[in-house]
Amino acid sequence: MPTRIRPATQADVPQILAFIRALAIYEREPDAVKATEADLLRDGFGPDAIFYCLIAEQDGAPAGFALYFFNYSTWLGRPGLYLEDLFVLPEFRGHGIGKALLQRVAAIAVERGCPRLQWEVLDWNTPAIDFYRAMGADFLDEWRNVRITGEALQRLAGVAKVGELS
Amino acid sequence: MPTRIRPATQADVPQILAFIRALAIYEREPDAVKATEADLLRDGFGPDAIFYCLIAEQDGAPAGFALYFFNYSTWLGRPGLYLEDLFVLPEFRGHGIGKALLQRVAAIAVERGCPRLQWEVLDWNTPAIDFYRAMGADFLDEWRNVRITGEALQRLAGVAKVGELS
Repeated sequence: MPTRIRPATQADVPQILAFIRALAIYEREPDAVKATEADLLRDGFGPDAIFYCLIAEQDGAPAGFALYFFNYSTWLGRPGLYLEDLFVLPEFRGHGIGKALLQRVAAIAVERGCPRLQWEVLDWNTPAIDFYRAMGADFLDEWRNVRITGEALQRLAGVAKVGELS
Repeated sequence: MPTRIRPATQADVPQILAFIRALAIYEREPDAVKATEADLLRDGFGPDAIFYCLIAEQDGAPAGFALYFFNYSTWLGRPGLYLEDLFVLPEFRGHGIGKALLQRVAAIAVERGCPRLQWEVLDWNTPAIDFYRAMGADFLDEWRNVRITGEALQRLAGVAKVGELS
């Protein structure tokens, strides 16, 4: 039976969380996942969804997933598609499932008028880097990712008067 | 008169596009801006807005802007705030306007329940890097940004059957 790729439904939420946890282990951050099923249900399904998810099945079994949302290019004046997670379970690798997921995500990007599909890869993940390069992806290595969280975010936020916004 | 930071309105669209063009020149990509006023009006204002924008004014004159949208952390199960553009016109620098914009964006992130504020910086932009580090930001240098566009995106998309999605 070939690989089947379909949009996730609410019933997939436990499986999506399992994929997210498995991906975190692969990325050497096994304790990083704080998300709950309730979080994913609230944020990924229904009219106010802020992310979207595809499930790959092999012979009817869940084999991998892709989770994405839309960003925005101010240079192009168009939304872009940002692929947050792409993952295939170890026992299903080597059958083109990752590529099939990426192809489907690319097709969604084109269909939605997104001129860019973007994602991130860990610098030690050589097989993935080679795979992406072979399909014509660019690596934007002159850009550094910056993040502020926790107390530093609270401290930065503390000075501004949020009330003025409302 | 102090710096004033306010949400952008439709009337600011020409100024926002001027800021985007000025930022592209600063980033050494003067020809990269294809966006039009119509694009920004469609995508940034009204009920289907996909980005948000703040304007900084100094003595009533437009001095800078911040443009952001929301992403999603599958590890945290929460939206994050992604700052796409932060820019202060050269003649207004050195008065803390950039920091005031960043503080306001941080306050919005906290208000909206986003545990992360994230953005990118060019690796040669040492003043900005030092400024971000001083406020407690982290640099996620083990992650490489990957992008697929143009013909490579079309080629990747061509294989998938988009019709299956609808």
